[in-house]
Amino acid sequence: MSAVPSAPTDPARYRFWVAEEVRFADLDVQGHVNNNAFGVFFEHGRVEFLRHLDGFGPDKPWLIALARSVIDYRAELHYPASIRIGMGVLRLGNTSLTLGGAVFKGDACISTQEAVCVLLDAGTRRPTPVPDSLRAALSSHSLV
Amino acid sequence: MSAVPSAPTDPARYRFWVAEEVRFADLDVQGHVNNNAFGVFFEHGRVEFLRHLDGFGPDKPWLIALARSVIDYRAELHYPASIRIGMGVLRLGNTSLTLGGAVFKGDACISTQEAVCVLLDAGTRRPTPVPDSLRAALSSHSLV
Amino acid sequence: MSAVPSAPTDPARYRFWVAEEVRFADLDVQGHVNNNAFGVFFEHGRVEFLRHLDGFGPDKPWLIALARSVIDYRAELHYPASIRIGMGVLRLGNTSLTLGGAVFKGDACISTQEAVCVLLDAGTRRPTPVPDSLRAALSSHSLV
Amino acid sequence: MSAVPSAPTDPARYRFWVAEEVRFADLDVQGHVNNNAFGVFFEHGRVEFLRHLDGFGPDKPWLIALARSVIDYRAELHYPASIRIGMGVLRLGNTSLTLGGAVFKGDACISTQEAVCVLLDAGTRRPTPVPDSLRAALSSHSLV
Repeated sequence: MSAVPSAPTDPARYRFWVAEEVRFADLDVQGHVNNNAFGVFFEHGRVEFLRHLDGFGPDKPWLIALARSVIDYRAELHYPASIRIGMGVLRLGNTSLTLGGAVFKGDACISTQEAVCVLLDAGTRRPTPVPDSLRAALSSHSLV
Repeated sequence: MSAVPSAPTDPARYRFWVAEEVRFADLDVQGHVNNNAFGVFFEHGRVEFLRHLDGFGPDKPWLIALARSVIDYRAELHYPASIRIGMGVLRLGNTSLTLGGAVFKGDACISTQEAVCVLLDAGTRRPTPVPDSLRAALSSHSLV
Repeated sequence: MSAVPSAPTDPARYRFWVAEEVRFADLDVQGHVNNNAFGVFFEHGRVEFLRHLDGFGPDKPWLIALARSVIDYRAELHYPASIRIGMGVLRLGNTSLTLGGAVFKGDACISTQEAVCVLLDAGTRRPTPVPDSLRAALSSHSLV
Repeated sequence: MSAVPSAPTDPARYRFWVAEEVRFADLDVQGHVNNNAFGVFFEHGRVEFLRHLDGFGPDKPWLIALARSVIDYRAELHYPASIRIGMGVLRLGNTSLTLGGAVFKGDACISTQEAVCVLLDAGTRRPTPVPDSLRAALSSHSLV
């Protein structure tokens, strides 16, 4: 993992965005947004980003599986809050791709994620190369 | 419960609204929004509604506890979807209040909830009368 | 709903049980188990009960959809806690069935649910009669 | 992070265990246990481990905040399943501690987590040294 760059904390670096409202159910007993809610935010950002690039859905001959998630918790988040999730690409391999994401409240970066994903053939569930069309779409959202 | 009116399925009946995006995590293995996600939507609507009426928060000398939840599932909801939750009041008792809520996609009613709540004194955790100011605010959102 | 009997609060009435550990994530900002966690407990009890009766699964030509959920919150539940969920049958219709469930900590009833379900043909997604074999299995778990 | 050892995938390395049942709600639309459910499992293991060491709770003058979570997804997990979560210590700093955890089904390692935590003074919310008693308790569960 040493070669994986960190997801940027500067909102100017992201070109794809998803807006979210924090829900009351995202809070935990400590009164702030629970660490697992960020996993849910990043998953939503990841799915929306890949759908936007025509890379995700039941009609695709591939699946995109999460192999590793690295989340840094940089600030507390409270209720209520409107947040936005920036998404982009940190690294493109042959059968893998690493997405970077960040949750912002205003311009304050609350949390970042590096998500190492693997493309699997929908039939065999074995790793399969990232198709050229998806590769081109992902490249236009490089964060590095 | 026989006397509790049903939450309306007509969006014209609601005066308080919360907007939400369905998250990927709201889906279940059957490919639609899980029944428990609606509980989360209604909880969010309930908290926002009561906060709007200055009836909910850590500074209040009362708590509002959910005693009974009746949810009707009227249609399937899929991903992605923007929804809105309408909230209002079905019944006002001495120490209890019954809220009505409905989840809409466009004007289609997906689900309704009747939520029987009880006011508890924040110190003793015993039932306590709905204060006059909150009673007045709630009355202006009657659904019946 | 007036004819639907309530789910019993007496553990002696249930013959099917599921054991669960409350998770830290089941808590909410008020420090007790959140109301939506009970929906998750009852869903788990419902699925396990129907699987036990050979009535649920991807190999079945029917789906069982939740049409109405009535949950009564009878006591607070805190962390940590071992709970058990009792499940049985409150009513059997032609294409519908109403399950009753209760969450217990020891012998104390924390919450009950009446769950009105509808059998749907897996192909057409239209209501379909409860098959005789499932009907017989359900009848042996009647709560009334 | 380069210096943080990985959480072991060998169950023989763990001395503290928590048992869990996968819930139907842990599944996602792809039919397996969702990646965020593992965050919930590890949180539960972490809380139980720290409670066992008398290091976590409302009576403590410190909080333990999660600063970084690294989760590796090593195999798919399906429903139903009984799992167990092994927990131990990867690194002890002055004001920080890194816990290692792993989810097993039987002896098969499904997922591992490295959780970098920081001790905060419950009053000031500033980093505070790990107390000697907790340090000693943690040391007896070293994974490295």
